[in-house]
Amino acid sequence: MQEVVTPPSPEQQELYWYLHYHMGWVDKEFQPTGEHTGKRLRPVFCLLACEACGGSWKQAIPAAAAVELLHNFSLIHDDIEDGDRTRRGRPTVWSLWGLPQALNAGDALYALAHLALLRLTEQAVPAETVTAAMRLFNQTCLQLTQGQFLDISFEERGDVTPQAYLSMIAGKTAALLAASCKLGALVANAPESRQEHIQAFGHHLGLAFQIQDDILGIWGDPKETGKPVGSDILRHKKTLPILHGLGQSEQLGSLLTKSEITTQEAAQAAQMLQEIGSRDWAEDQAREQTELALSALDAGDCPATLALQDLALELLGRVR
Amino acid sequence: MQEVVTPPSPEQQELYWYLHYHMGWVDKEFQPTGEHTGKRLRPVFCLLACEACGGSWKQAIPAAAAVELLHNFSLIHDDIEDGDRTRRGRPTVWSLWGLPQALNAGDALYALAHLALLRLTEQAVPAETVTAAMRLFNQTCLQLTQGQFLDISFEERGDVTPQAYLSMIAGKTAALLAASCKLGALVANAPESRQEHIQAFGHHLGLAFQIQDDILGIWGDPKETGKPVGSDILRHKKTLPILHGLGQSEQLGSLLTKSEITTQEAAQAAQMLQEIGSRDWAEDQAREQTELALSALDAGDCPATLALQDLALELLGRVR
Repeated sequence: MQEVVTPPSPEQQELYWYLHYHMGWVDKEFQPTGEHTGKRLRPVFCLLACEACGGSWKQAIPAAAAVELLHNFSLIHDDIEDGDRTRRGRPTVWSLWGLPQALNAGDALYALAHLALLRLTEQAVPAETVTAAMRLFNQTCLQLTQGQFLDISFEERGDVTPQAYLSMIAGKTAALLAASCKLGALVANAPESRQEHIQAFGHHLGLAFQIQDDILGIWGDPKETGKPVGSDILRHKKTLPILHGLGQSEQLGSLLTKSEITTQEAAQAAQMLQEIGSRDWAEDQAREQTELALSALDAGDCPATLALQDLALELLGRVR
Repeated sequence: MQEVVTPPSPEQQELYWYLHYHMGWVDKEFQPTGEHTGKRLRPVFCLLACEACGGSWKQAIPAAAAVELLHNFSLIHDDIEDGDRTRRGRPTVWSLWGLPQALNAGDALYALAHLALLRLTEQAVPAETVTAAMRLFNQTCLQLTQGQFLDISFEERGDVTPQAYLSMIAGKTAALLAASCKLGALVANAPESRQEHIQAFGHHLGLAFQIQDDILGIWGDPKETGKPVGSDILRHKKTLPILHGLGQSEQLGSLLTKSEITTQEAAQAAQMLQEIGSRDWAEDQAREQTELALSALDAGDCPATLALQDLALELLGRVR
């Protein structure tokens, strides 16, 4: 990734500093730091998927770099769209260097992600496969924007159903994990049906991860999440358990739509949600998506496929 | 272009309406209109360049659509970055549907531009050529962001030189015209040196167009431009003739940096600029770039190449 995110000439350094900062490689004075990168789940799934399909993970490195850069591009723009001033405990790019420069830096990272993917040609991947990878990559970008479109729309809508919410996170969260897996399979030159199965694995797993996040955003242990109980309720987020609860109880609706919610009220709402079954329902949904993911994967006894399965279960806090 | 900018399902229509509106295909109530598209210069140059290199223009249609869509993507984002509320006499996307949706719609158009370019595979263009075209396309996107980075930076800098300004417009304006020409040559499978010459033609022509625009932005005939004399001075734009003048006269500097400039002062500044030779100097620059463009083109007597030359000269208001 650092090789790709390099200015073509020293005069162009400054634009790239913004990107190095966002990636967590430097601090806001542009001094090196190694502590603020993300979890890099998508590239790991991409590389494992390549191995699981009989390919060599090294060949998929450009694709792995591309999905992580694309993910980070989307974060720079999401932070602007959502007005978020912090990410991973640090000020966001727009809050430091202004909206116009941040928007433009995001566009630069968008192009760099594409250039990373095109480096597949240097890994002896056939040009036909590279064009197929580019097509998938850009279709995934479209899904991301469709998810983001829905997410922004939902803020002004009072009638969001759990089903509409699942469509939104399918684009916003699951599409890129699904594409990460499928890109690995593409590089490995797996049969079409295998590519589709591993893409389905990523899709359902992405949904399961997001629903799990939604559950932790309400009932997560403050010691582990670093956030108060009912954190998402305090922030007025309409996540899956909350949307389920709103459909069940009017009393809950009037509590959740208050313009100022106290921590006590948030804890009370979390309790109510649990009592009317929204937590159980959301956990069922996460479990269902996990089962769909695992059955699509069909691990058998291939070590890389088992590693994918173990990683998925570990991230979901469950054991095989 | 309309074929590419089509929602994959009817539920996804709304995001695409924003794009149809921006492209000038519908009005803000999403009713058809055919009157507000841009000049579409870039696709015309792309198709002519393909013919001029011995190719068939029909084969280059996906590339021509791609450069026009990419240009429009950059306009949606530029309008946000510059805070512009109108474009081509109509409200901008962000001013109608808000900044978050406009930013996201721009991202969608970026992906659609790439998907348009990938349709070259349907025109029997070899996959190796398509990956080369994708690489050029994304390197061009990077140049656009570098130009935009400089443009945004210049607003806060008092020390912008004419040379720095030319670097900025090389990225912001010339790079995409140069790429449009080179893509045509690539599709035609022209020899490397011919590709580079036709790219240089587009580059120098792009600079000449922009400098001409800068001259018209100060001394253009109000009857033709629809803007007052000294329009760019009123808008505090630091264009090439203005930067030249600032280096020549302190009196001009204090006039141009006033926070409120009257139309009378703008006309007076335009007069001063002309007297100290900034207009002549800028015209020399435009002429020099035009000569460089034409000598790179080396028209000979190929009809398509002569058409490129004639179009260039016509747009510059000159005759062969």
